[in-house]
Amino acid sequence: MRGVVMYGPGDVRVVERDEPHIVEPTDAVIRLTATCICGSDLWPYRGAEPADGLPMGHEYVGVVEEVGSAVETVKPGDFVIGSFVISDGTCDICRAGYPSRCVHAQFVHGTIGTQSDRARIPYADGTLVATPGMPDDDLVPSLLAASDVLGTGWFAAVAAEAGPGKTVAVVGDGAVGLLGILAARELGAERIIAMSRHADRQALAREFGATDIVEERGDDGVARIKELTDGLGAHSVIEAVGTQESMMQAIRSTRPGGHVGYVGVSHDVQLPGDELFFSQVHLHGGPAPVRRFLPDLIDRIWKRQIDPGKVFDLELPLADAAAGYTAMDQRRAIKVLLRP
Amino acid sequence: MRGVVMYGPGDVRVVERDEPHIVEPTDAVIRLTATCICGSDLWPYRGAEPADGLPMGHEYVGVVEEVGSAVETVKPGDFVIGSFVISDGTCDICRAGYPSRCVHAQFVHGTIGTQSDRARIPYADGTLVATPGMPDDDLVPSLLAASDVLGTGWFAAVAAEAGPGKTVAVVGDGAVGLLGILAARELGAERIIAMSRHADRQALAREFGATDIVEERGDDGVARIKELTDGLGAHSVIEAVGTQESMMQAIRSTRPGGHVGYVGVSHDVQLPGDELFFSQVHLHGGPAPVRRFLPDLIDRIWKRQIDPGKVFDLELPLADAAAGYTAMDQRRAIKVLLRP
Repeated sequence: MRGVVMYGPGDVRVVERDEPHIVEPTDAVIRLTATCICGSDLWPYRGAEPADGLPMGHEYVGVVEEVGSAVETVKPGDFVIGSFVISDGTCDICRAGYPSRCVHAQFVHGTIGTQSDRARIPYADGTLVATPGMPDDDLVPSLLAASDVLGTGWFAAVAAEAGPGKTVAVVGDGAVGLLGILAARELGAERIIAMSRHADRQALAREFGATDIVEERGDDGVARIKELTDGLGAHSVIEAVGTQESMMQAIRSTRPGGHVGYVGVSHDVQLPGDELFFSQVHLHGGPAPVRRFLPDLIDRIWKRQIDPGKVFDLELPLADAAAGYTAMDQRRAIKVLLRP
Repeated sequence: MRGVVMYGPGDVRVVERDEPHIVEPTDAVIRLTATCICGSDLWPYRGAEPADGLPMGHEYVGVVEEVGSAVETVKPGDFVIGSFVISDGTCDICRAGYPSRCVHAQFVHGTIGTQSDRARIPYADGTLVATPGMPDDDLVPSLLAASDVLGTGWFAAVAAEAGPGKTVAVVGDGAVGLLGILAARELGAERIIAMSRHADRQALAREFGATDIVEERGDDGVARIKELTDGLGAHSVIEAVGTQESMMQAIRSTRPGGHVGYVGVSHDVQLPGDELFFSQVHLHGGPAPVRRFLPDLIDRIWKRQIDPGKVFDLELPLADAAAGYTAMDQRRAIKVLLRP
C-alpha cells in the first residue's frame, strides 16, 4: 500500500509500505476514506523534531475491513473515526477520562502513520467509534476533524472551563485554535476573543463563534485582553501553539483563578515557577483525550449542528501529500485533507 | 508598640514600631492575642529573599479595638482571624473565590507585619472573620493556624481535588504539608501518603490522617508513590515546599489526569513545558485564598472537630521572637507561636 514517510526536514514522500494485517485479537484493519496533515506534522517538517523514516499521519476516518477475534464494538463495513492515540478503553486512566495517557497508549504518529491507504488500529474497541451509518460525503471532513483538531480544540475548551458567563481568549489561529473557538461556543461561552492577524482565519474564527478579534501578540496582546475584560483577564484561555511566547501570553491573559487549557505541543518551553505561582491560574492540557469526546462530537456532526470540516481549505489526493505539506508550511492552507 | 523587624539574613529584632490607627473608613485596628513564625519567613531569614527593615509576621488572631466608619461585620471586642492577604471581599476576583488576588490585595508580610502588639487591618470586612464568641484559650493556636498554614494546606488539598476515593500524596512535612494531610482527611480522601523522613513529623502526620509514610525523596520518592498506586501515581498531590525538586517530585507523583495543588512559595523553579504537557496533570496553586475557607475552618475548630494548633510545638513571648526564628531555622521546631 501507499503511505507518506518523512525522511528529513522538508522531505516527505509517498512510498510503498507493508500491507497492514491483524496481529492481536484486539486489532482492526481499516481502509482510509480520508486523512490529513496536522499542524504538529510541521514540527519535524521544519526540523524542530527528528524525522528519519517517520510514517506520517495520525488523523483518520475509514471503513473497517477486518477485526480480530476479541473486537466487539466495530465490525467490517463500519465507518469509523479514531483518536490519534491508541487506547485500551479499560484501564483506570482511560476510565478517568484520559485515554491519551492509557497504560497501553501509543501515538499513531510515527508508528502506524495514517497518511496511507490502510492502517492497523490496535485496541480497536478502545480507540475507534463507529458512526450511526455510512456518512454523506459532505460530512467526511467534519468527521475527520473530530479525530484530532476538533477533539483537541474541544479538550482545550473543556480544560479552560469555557462555559456560560465566561469570556474565553484563544491564542493560536491554526485549525486547533479555530476549533477551540467552535468548542467554546458550543459549551456556551458568552464572549470569545480570537487572537489572530490573518484575515482568512479571522473570518473563519467569526464564523465559528468569535465575538472579538485581537491582532496584537505577546505583551501587547495581553494588554488588549486586559482592556477587554475590565483589567482582569479572560476567565478561560485556550493555548494552541506550544511556544514560550504563546504559553506566557496565555497565562498572562488569564485572570487569577481562571483556567488555561493548553494543547499546542510544547517546544522549548520553560514556565517560571514564581510567575505561575502568583498568577494563580489553573493549568491543564497535553495530548487531548479525544476518544472521551468522540461519541458526543460525532453526534453533533451527524445532526449537522457543527461544521468543523470548514478548517480544511485544501484537498489533495494522497499521492500529492508533499504539495500539501508545502502549502501548510507556507501558510497557504490552514489544513490539508488527503484522499487515498 | 513592639514589633519584629528583619534587618538582614539571620537578623531579626523586636523593636519599637509606630502605633497603628484607623486611616481609611474600611480599617480595623486589632490587638494581637497570638501570632507566629511561618516557614516562608525562613526564605528571607536564610537570605533567599531580600530583608532590609522588613516588618515580619502575617498570621494573626486578636481582639478588635477600633473600626472605621464603613466597617460592618466586625466591631470592637470581637475576636477575629484574618488572612495573610488583605482583600476587599467585593471585587470580581474575590467573589470568584480568589481573595488572595483581590484587585486591592496587599500582603500582610513585609508591610503590616503582625509579629507585633497591634496591627491596622485594611478592608476589615473582606479580610477578617469574627468567631462566635471569645474562644477558650486552648482554641487559640488552632484559630491562629487557620490564618495561614491551615488555610494554605486546605487550599492545597482543594486544588489537588482531594476527596472520597482518592489517594493523596503530600510533598513537604512542614506545618502546611501536615495540615494538607488533615485537610485531605477532612475532605474524605481514602488514602494519604505523607512524604517525610523526620520521626516527629511522621507521628503528627499519622495523627492528622496519613495512612502511609514514604521516606524517599526525588526520583526514589516518585518510584515509591508509583509502587503504592499500581504504577499510576496518586490522584492528588499536595506540594508544600516550593523548590525545583519538590515541584518535579509532585508532578511526577501524579497520575495522568490527576491534580497537583502547589502552595510552597516558588523559588528558582522552572517547569519544563514538554514534561508538563505529556504529564497531563492539572496544576493549580499559589498564595492560598484563605479568606474563602475561614468561616468553614473556624466552624470546624469551634466544634473541636479538628485540632490544627498541634503544629505549634514551641511557644515563646513576642520578646523572644529571635529565638523562635533560630529554632525553626534549625528544624528544632515545626512552628513557633508568639504571645505579645
